[in-house]
Amino acid sequence: MKLATLKNGTRDGQLVVVSKDLSTYVPASEVAPTLQALLDQWDVLAPKLASIYKALNEGRLPQTKPLVPENAMAPLPRAYQWCDGSAYLSHAELVRKARNAEMPAFLYQDPLMYQGASDTFLGGRDDIEVADEAWGIDLEAEIAVITGDVPMGVSFSDARQHIRLVTLVNDVSLRNLIPHELSKGFGFVHSKPSTAFGTVAVTPDELQPHWDGGRLNLPVVSHVNGKELGHPHAGTDLDFDFPTLVAHAAKTRRLAAGTVIGSGTISNRDLSVGSSCIAERRMLETIETGKPATGFLRFGDLVEIEVVDPDGKTVFGAIRQKVVRYGP
Amino acid sequence: MKLATLKNGTRDGQLVVVSKDLSTYVPASEVAPTLQALLDQWDVLAPKLASIYKALNEGRLPQTKPLVPENAMAPLPRAYQWCDGSAYLSHAELVRKARNAEMPAFLYQDPLMYQGASDTFLGGRDDIEVADEAWGIDLEAEIAVITGDVPMGVSFSDARQHIRLVTLVNDVSLRNLIPHELSKGFGFVHSKPSTAFGTVAVTPDELQPHWDGGRLNLPVVSHVNGKELGHPHAGTDLDFDFPTLVAHAAKTRRLAAGTVIGSGTISNRDLSVGSSCIAERRMLETIETGKPATGFLRFGDLVEIEVVDPDGKTVFGAIRQKVVRYGP
Repeated sequence: MKLATLKNGTRDGQLVVVSKDLSTYVPASEVAPTLQALLDQWDVLAPKLASIYKALNEGRLPQTKPLVPENAMAPLPRAYQWCDGSAYLSHAELVRKARNAEMPAFLYQDPLMYQGASDTFLGGRDDIEVADEAWGIDLEAEIAVITGDVPMGVSFSDARQHIRLVTLVNDVSLRNLIPHELSKGFGFVHSKPSTAFGTVAVTPDELQPHWDGGRLNLPVVSHVNGKELGHPHAGTDLDFDFPTLVAHAAKTRRLAAGTVIGSGTISNRDLSVGSSCIAERRMLETIETGKPATGFLRFGDLVEIEVVDPDGKTVFGAIRQKVVRYGP
Repeated sequence: MKLATLKNGTRDGQLVVVSKDLSTYVPASEVAPTLQALLDQWDVLAPKLASIYKALNEGRLPQTKPLVPENAMAPLPRAYQWCDGSAYLSHAELVRKARNAEMPAFLYQDPLMYQGASDTFLGGRDDIEVADEAWGIDLEAEIAVITGDVPMGVSFSDARQHIRLVTLVNDVSLRNLIPHELSKGFGFVHSKPSTAFGTVAVTPDELQPHWDGGRLNLPVVSHVNGKELGHPHAGTDLDFDFPTLVAHAAKTRRLAAGTVIGSGTISNRDLSVGSSCIAERRMLETIETGKPATGFLRFGDLVEIEVVDPDGKTVFGAIRQKVVRYGP
């Protein structure tokens, strides 16, 4: 099934069941008021919503409403945990190549992952508010999963069963703040402002045959101001699949229901597919010509990220965000 | 006022108003079912609870119950954000001194802060469950604040008004996993398992005259197996006060109500007061004799952290946790 959270003036919004083609919805309030409430009691409540979803797609529900993506918050507008991996190592390889550095061998066994801020997630059509263009505003197109309760020390093989939903992410990054924060070793605070999400989160069964239990086998297309930045394939060159990332996050502590685990910027070794972030394009330019040519995002720029299935249908709804100057 | 969250079989527990001496409580459910619900509408709801708190302390409420600290969850059992600073630079100075390294000058202007996991906070009497003693289990005694909504880019002077509650923290750390994670630059995932909290969170007005708007001016005493590890003063050598830490966290993004901001391990330059974590004691031993003598925590060890006011009264309730082997 496909689920969205609509703006209703509350912090957690209103959970709704969305039709497969994202055209209509019905409220889920009879079953669960919010996505977190659903995740908290998934095994009991999800089957009830699955019935509603089936009836909605079969046109058996009289009271449907048209879905307006601009009214959607992030599927989980505030979450108790957001861990973002860096699971496409071709991206990390390019980072190193652009600065003539060696790729550390351990990165092929041990995923990079940071704990991100999850208190203020953005809807897919919300503006990206940044105070200063000089911070180097960038998109990062990613896939993420939302988990149920995950026991501490879960095995890679068991981790798969705890994946409840899959969604699309724009992990907004402030590139020029990253080198200093990374040098401090404590991860990202300033350089990762609020993260944005696709219109809907989708259960793995609904993604068949494009979800193999560990990865989404579809390309993710990113545009800036209507010009394609790239369409790397989310299932290709994913060096750590989602069960591996979930198990990594849970090595020393349990994960509560509603934990969001991201893949990191989607990146393929076939460079002809382009990139999912401007930073990577700039690295490729640096490798080719000695210096970057593409600038980071400016106020007024439009970022679009979407997954479209082979039938041309949007899977998660397009992320479509304008970059605007933040003023208090 | 003093607030606690009692175990009631739900994920968020039951919010209760606790008497100043932590002996009795009354449910807050008429006003707010959970601490997050209170923080979400603080300005409207907090005055109502303050009236209940006053009546409770004046003995005007008939239906009080005795507070059993073992029944307390963390005041906020799951939070949308936990950012932990490293605001006592004497600790960072000792880290460098023990490995004969220079203290980077920028650390005196720019706080170290990491984004921690906030999905599974522990109550002050909950066990510390760890799978492997070899990970180097350690306590870290800290003070933390819980904020209301904080606007992006808040000034240091305005940040103060967004502090809603103050509490006590045991930022459990797995020391032997830290060097590798720090070398990756992405912060802590494995080396910071679930964080534990004092029995109650306390409003700043209630802490007078020991809260000056930016810091708690009381010592924090830590014991391991009944033996004092140290009693550094939380108001001394705090190089970045709480408004500064809140403003730091909010530089590029707003903070949602219920954000928890920690001070980092309390540490004083007067070494005679001892330490708030075993790692620091081991550094002092290394500086003195060339190698550490004190071992990290073992299964069965008891950790106690408490703030006692000059009248000998506990302020937040004692954190008292046993270290146990985690078994699935």
